[in-house]
Amino acid sequence: MRDFLPEAVNKRKYVIEVIERVYKLHGFVPLETPSMENLSVLLGKYGEEGDQLIYRLLHRGEKLTRALDEGTFTEDDLAELGMRYDLTVPLARVVAQYRNDLPRYFKRYQIQPVWRADRPAKGRFREFFQCDADITGTESLMAEADVLNAVTSILNKLGFNNCQIDLNHRGLLRGMILAAGIEPKLEGTTLTALDKLDKIGEEGVLDEMQEKEISKESAQKLLSLVAVTGEASNDEIFAHLRSDLREGVGAAALADLKTLLHLCSESPAGGMLKLTPRLARGLSYYTGPIFEITSTDFKGSLGGGGRYDNLIGMFGKQQIPAVGFSIGLERILLLMDDLGLYPDVETRAKVLVCALKDTPLEGVISLAGQLRERGIAVEIYPDQHKLGRQIGYADELKIPFVIIVGEEEIRNQRYGLKELVSGEQEALDVDGLIEKLS
Amino acid sequence: MRDFLPEAVNKRKYVIEVIERVYKLHGFVPLETPSMENLSVLLGKYGEEGDQLIYRLLHRGEKLTRALDEGTFTEDDLAELGMRYDLTVPLARVVAQYRNDLPRYFKRYQIQPVWRADRPAKGRFREFFQCDADITGTESLMAEADVLNAVTSILNKLGFNNCQIDLNHRGLLRGMILAAGIEPKLEGTTLTALDKLDKIGEEGVLDEMQEKEISKESAQKLLSLVAVTGEASNDEIFAHLRSDLREGVGAAALADLKTLLHLCSESPAGGMLKLTPRLARGLSYYTGPIFEITSTDFKGSLGGGGRYDNLIGMFGKQQIPAVGFSIGLERILLLMDDLGLYPDVETRAKVLVCALKDTPLEGVISLAGQLRERGIAVEIYPDQHKLGRQIGYADELKIPFVIIVGEEEIRNQRYGLKELVSGEQEALDVDGLIEKLS
Repeated sequence: MRDFLPEAVNKRKYVIEVIERVYKLHGFVPLETPSMENLSVLLGKYGEEGDQLIYRLLHRGEKLTRALDEGTFTEDDLAELGMRYDLTVPLARVVAQYRNDLPRYFKRYQIQPVWRADRPAKGRFREFFQCDADITGTESLMAEADVLNAVTSILNKLGFNNCQIDLNHRGLLRGMILAAGIEPKLEGTTLTALDKLDKIGEEGVLDEMQEKEISKESAQKLLSLVAVTGEASNDEIFAHLRSDLREGVGAAALADLKTLLHLCSESPAGGMLKLTPRLARGLSYYTGPIFEITSTDFKGSLGGGGRYDNLIGMFGKQQIPAVGFSIGLERILLLMDDLGLYPDVETRAKVLVCALKDTPLEGVISLAGQLRERGIAVEIYPDQHKLGRQIGYADELKIPFVIIVGEEEIRNQRYGLKELVSGEQEALDVDGLIEKLS
Repeated sequence: MRDFLPEAVNKRKYVIEVIERVYKLHGFVPLETPSMENLSVLLGKYGEEGDQLIYRLLHRGEKLTRALDEGTFTEDDLAELGMRYDLTVPLARVVAQYRNDLPRYFKRYQIQPVWRADRPAKGRFREFFQCDADITGTESLMAEADVLNAVTSILNKLGFNNCQIDLNHRGLLRGMILAAGIEPKLEGTTLTALDKLDKIGEEGVLDEMQEKEISKESAQKLLSLVAVTGEASNDEIFAHLRSDLREGVGAAALADLKTLLHLCSESPAGGMLKLTPRLARGLSYYTGPIFEITSTDFKGSLGGGGRYDNLIGMFGKQQIPAVGFSIGLERILLLMDDLGLYPDVETRAKVLVCALKDTPLEGVISLAGQLRERGIAVEIYPDQHKLGRQIGYADELKIPFVIIVGEEEIRNQRYGLKELVSGEQEALDVDGLIEKLS
């Protein structure tokens, strides 16, 4: 976990503002959920490994005493609250809980921190921000298209040129698993192995699948189905898969993907989408199309998402379909830094007010107030140091102007304005200062 | 802890933006610190009661196993991280830790959630936001004046008319305690009792002080010193106190307060400040002037702060003076709601795009994209429902316009724009839509 000093906060704010603006333009509205959830909400949604990474809050007071007094107990007896692990599960809980207060389609965005007790690495932190947009209440692929266009617009507005959105479908994965002759009950195991393809290579995945009692032949067949060179077009990939997936869940998924690509064909997302049969996505709750942003400038994904039609039903009586996308803020920031994509952002005061010795300070404060009322960011030097030291402070902070105020200036209501870069100085009244500094 | 649905988030965002804008105008720059701190950073800073209210994170994996295996253990063996309890202690840690990277005066604002395992009540939550502004590095009362003017400007810009800022000084409290003949070592106990004056009244405070071995005479003397009617002017209060505080720490504090009031005399904070000798403030780290916002419209404080010259030194070798103010977001929001101070904020899409049956949907998505590129917030109705149902959805969400798109509209590139309130409808091309909706 990290401290963010002012320059870092301003960079984060810039990116968050772009993301938020685009989400709003796409009709998403904001939601915020508590940092802590009941463990019963969190557990069993992220897979076994995910459950292990949830931060738990120690019972307090009597509850703790009672737990400790019982003598034998487990982790579960010591905590009932956990820290938010992603933004999708809280959304699902909210949609089930407030069903009657929410519109038919809940298009929500949410930009909040999540916590994972993971081993930190480049771009992976224990506290990090996710920037999610989801649409609940429809099975229409229009929702996928809408989410994908929002994400594409964000990547474009931030200045990324080398991104693509990998596209796959849980149904296509299931179809390929069946076509490879792997038993349906081994689907989860197979996806876990496949998810490591980029990390451990074909040989590694073959070994892992065989360890999990999948025949070498089936494993090889699956790998040949997902094996696609980077240059293959979406149409070529469709052709490669079609002969093995002529019916059933796999064929239906191929049709979905074809429709989705067509829906995006006249908008920016169209050019970003790349069929990627090997894409598995770790989380267990996806049911339909799945996505992941990759960039040739960055190893790993910048965000991802997909359709999850069965998650909301876990929190209520009604099954409500949903699709969404999550952008990982810290990785976007890392890549923005690497590529130098930040615009110059003004972060400091525009002017420092410096008082000479014996100046009536209430007048100095009043002057600063008048400028601030007109939208000019003003810092007041608080101590009675020599003028050179005061100006040195403005220089150090890259504050571009100083106003020099003495007893006479207060009396005459004309103040010395000095531009530090040029060294130019002029005497101005308050209106003159406002005009010059605005 | 609460979920914030879109309307509530937008209200929060409005207030946060006002606060942030004012802080920036006063030359403050943003800082963000992690949600979790080492318990060693947090403990011993907030008083005994505060320590009890800190949320602690349960050890995980091996550390937990090891702790459990040892058989006998306390709370401290089960956790080493705690949740942020306020924003002042993290600031103090940061200033000590990054001393060489920060300017001479670190004027930082910070708007982040904090957590307290407290009993919830009206305006008191377990997760809540604080909006802090602090100046480190100077003992000058100019810093107090700057912080107080920022807070005053925030209250004014939010539309509060019935607020005042209660002003006191830890040195004045000490001086009054000495003047009342109370032993210096009972200062903490005395302040704890005095802090309850508004809650339990004079009799209650007298009883509590006598229980703590303060003589009735001393207790009565102290209460007579702090007893000030609401109508007394600051000058009258100075006069009331002066005879008992002619020298030492109390007299110095009176001089400080007089200087501070004079510094603010020509700026908005001047009219807000009210000398309040009974104001004690719970937190133990204050050393100089202390403040609290009160309102005749609200029971309890909306925020507070003060000078704490010894806190940063607890985290490093160097003692660095500091002063700051913390605004409690949730109480401000409650009061804004009670007083109806929110402006109308546009929260939803401006227009809903409705597709008729057999419309080429890729064209619908493309049309929405063109409008969004021009800054118009557009929602697309995702399902192929009857037009009446689609328009009903726009009505329900108070989306003011719908665009009706059919096969012919796509072919002719002229679309039906309907304003829902008036029922007026016209056929426009994309440029016409943009002009009308911008």
